[in-house]
Amino acid sequence: MNAEILTIGDELLIGQTIDTNSAWIGKNLALFGIQISRKTAVSDSKIEIVTAITEAFKRVDFLLVTGGLGPTKDDITKKTLAGFYGCGFRRDESVAAHLENIFARRGRQLLEINKQQADVPEICEVLCNEVGTAPGMWFDQKGKVLVSMPGVPNEMVHIMENRVFPRIKDRFKTPEILHCTAVTVGIPESLLSKQLEDFEKTLPPHIKLAYLPALNTVKLRLSGQSDDAALLKAEMTGYFDNLCEVCGEAIFVREDISPVKYIARQLIHNKIKISLAESCTGGFIANQLVTESGISKVFNGSIISYANEIKHRELGVPNEIFSTVGAVSEKCARYMCEAALKKFNADIAISTTGIAGPGGATDEKPVGLIYIGIATAKGSRVKKYHLFGTREQFMQRAANCAMMLVKDTLLQEFGVH
Amino acid sequence: MNAEILTIGDELLIGQTIDTNSAWIGKNLALFGIQISRKTAVSDSKIEIVTAITEAFKRVDFLLVTGGLGPTKDDITKKTLAGFYGCGFRRDESVAAHLENIFARRGRQLLEINKQQADVPEICEVLCNEVGTAPGMWFDQKGKVLVSMPGVPNEMVHIMENRVFPRIKDRFKTPEILHCTAVTVGIPESLLSKQLEDFEKTLPPHIKLAYLPALNTVKLRLSGQSDDAALLKAEMTGYFDNLCEVCGEAIFVREDISPVKYIARQLIHNKIKISLAESCTGGFIANQLVTESGISKVFNGSIISYANEIKHRELGVPNEIFSTVGAVSEKCARYMCEAALKKFNADIAISTTGIAGPGGATDEKPVGLIYIGIATAKGSRVKKYHLFGTREQFMQRAANCAMMLVKDTLLQEFGVH
Repeated sequence: MNAEILTIGDELLIGQTIDTNSAWIGKNLALFGIQISRKTAVSDSKIEIVTAITEAFKRVDFLLVTGGLGPTKDDITKKTLAGFYGCGFRRDESVAAHLENIFARRGRQLLEINKQQADVPEICEVLCNEVGTAPGMWFDQKGKVLVSMPGVPNEMVHIMENRVFPRIKDRFKTPEILHCTAVTVGIPESLLSKQLEDFEKTLPPHIKLAYLPALNTVKLRLSGQSDDAALLKAEMTGYFDNLCEVCGEAIFVREDISPVKYIARQLIHNKIKISLAESCTGGFIANQLVTESGISKVFNGSIISYANEIKHRELGVPNEIFSTVGAVSEKCARYMCEAALKKFNADIAISTTGIAGPGGATDEKPVGLIYIGIATAKGSRVKKYHLFGTREQFMQRAANCAMMLVKDTLLQEFGVH
Repeated sequence: MNAEILTIGDELLIGQTIDTNSAWIGKNLALFGIQISRKTAVSDSKIEIVTAITEAFKRVDFLLVTGGLGPTKDDITKKTLAGFYGCGFRRDESVAAHLENIFARRGRQLLEINKQQADVPEICEVLCNEVGTAPGMWFDQKGKVLVSMPGVPNEMVHIMENRVFPRIKDRFKTPEILHCTAVTVGIPESLLSKQLEDFEKTLPPHIKLAYLPALNTVKLRLSGQSDDAALLKAEMTGYFDNLCEVCGEAIFVREDISPVKYIARQLIHNKIKISLAESCTGGFIANQLVTESGISKVFNGSIISYANEIKHRELGVPNEIFSTVGAVSEKCARYMCEAALKKFNADIAISTTGIAGPGGATDEKPVGLIYIGIATAKGSRVKKYHLFGTREQFMQRAANCAMMLVKDTLLQEFGVH
């Protein structure tokens, strides 16, 4: 079954707010076999809103609307909906009680403008919003369902999870939809698609393959749709196994997760400590790891050794390295990771040294050149890469390459699959 | 003048990708006096795309389309556009040469599937994409302009800035628009707007003030529109001076630039060396600084001292600190920044220690508590903050707070304005 999303608010159109609600709704309705077939954003304008609703109901029977439910004058969704359905307002007692409660708790006076948030179009069913002041509303008229929710992300999520999901199961017959996603690192989309050409031909019409490329990663997503849940699951499992087999080594993880996040979780789960000595990536990789909550269990710290004097003094890289092969070299990367392993009492240490650009390049060492080292108690090794893009992209690509090395080492030396 | 945005891609509808492009486009077209009146997202489906384009051209004369230009089978925008305009394809030689060049540089083989990226609908004008493989396309038929661009954010931005903006000036009659932007840090939007209430009343109708809040920064943007460029410039300068005067200390910089970027440039320009000892921000602040090209002149390195043993061993924080006041304390922050100053031969050193959450809080030390220290040859001081949000938001807010401390120190101790 298809549904549409309508987001209301000037702030979305002038780019003041990035709409994260739609992605959340799309992802979560997919679990009910409901596909979002279109998203529309319009301004806080009565005619724009009514036109968009009318158009959407020509295409689908289920419309999710967010935004425009605040207490101030510029928020007109509720009034517009009453106009659209040609009905008056009623004061909802449960919402009124909730508002009194919430204002009392915050020690704030309940103004008339606030009380009006309990006024809802007569024909709607109220979807109680326990985490905010504007209630959600469920309209079910002439076979068409419209859900109106606040645009505040956590309020929308609360109403969806607690009020809308249960109603969807009762109200709609939906097919089973399944997604299986794998993440590849270091293989361009075009090469992958060539590799998967024959596999794609084996897919039945109700199972589709999508390529979602990012910085040197490509997500491969199989999506299947059927009325027979058990059959679909078996089919999908088979095709997903085939897909992963065809891609072989290119598959980083058979799950929808970023490489760094996946490695962070593997390290935490297996209690394997990591540290880093970063030069050209300037703390990027460490910071990506630290973004994962719970990392403190396996991360004591790391160093950003940007200048040669710091590489020498803090990591013991001999000065003759700089005067002979230079800091951007296999040898320097090896010293760095080996020293970081000891300095931070880690089980695995990563080092990076390279030319992030745009400056700093020479004929022999172009922008994008990077050596990434990895050390464990058993020894160390260094790999050389040529990565391209802006400074930020260079760092992100380097992080993904580093995660490939860590993954390989986790498997080879720690038996972690 | 109004325009619309059409984004194409299943990944947007199933929520795998959050659309940041539309916000960027909306914000930047406003600089040309063009308002986005509607945004629509549809799937990679021929009929959906054609329908959406047809509908949009009933409402506006200018349509910006992103997505669906990859080399693989699921990307059908280019074919659909040729169908919509009823034209065939031609191979664009400049794009073909660019592709050969890019693949040679990356040491990759140019497959037929890649070569086909140089095939474009006959009637379009190619918008060269120097940072990627899929060219942008400009269609101008029957008074309606359609721009098709890749969905990859940096490629879209590149094409917009270098190819679309110049064409907009030629193609559409747009009034003179001027913007003056100042960035404030640490003052909530509601307080600023109260402070600026009287100032706003002095503004003539053709000059507007916008509040663009982000993580503990608010951009104040004055936008003026007129047919008389010289007069507008004089007016805008006067009002912008007034605005900055009313805000006083709250203004971080009278320019549209992030606090970290601004400080990085100030440090580089004045040859003042910075280093950091980060705990709870896990390298975030260092990495933000390192993102600025040329930072190596003033950044030798920094340390992420996550575990207490590293704070002790590498930074000399006495163990009794941990057993008495704890690592999240004013005293610990002071030891950390003073040690970082010496360890990395810096002129200014920043330290952070706090509770990023979601775990690790106690009754006395809630999630969001952070001490930020700053040291110079003249001494050190520590400030305590309560920051809220996710781990990433916490780190970003902490970075902005740290930049306020650096700015203040640059002024007080180094005479840098």
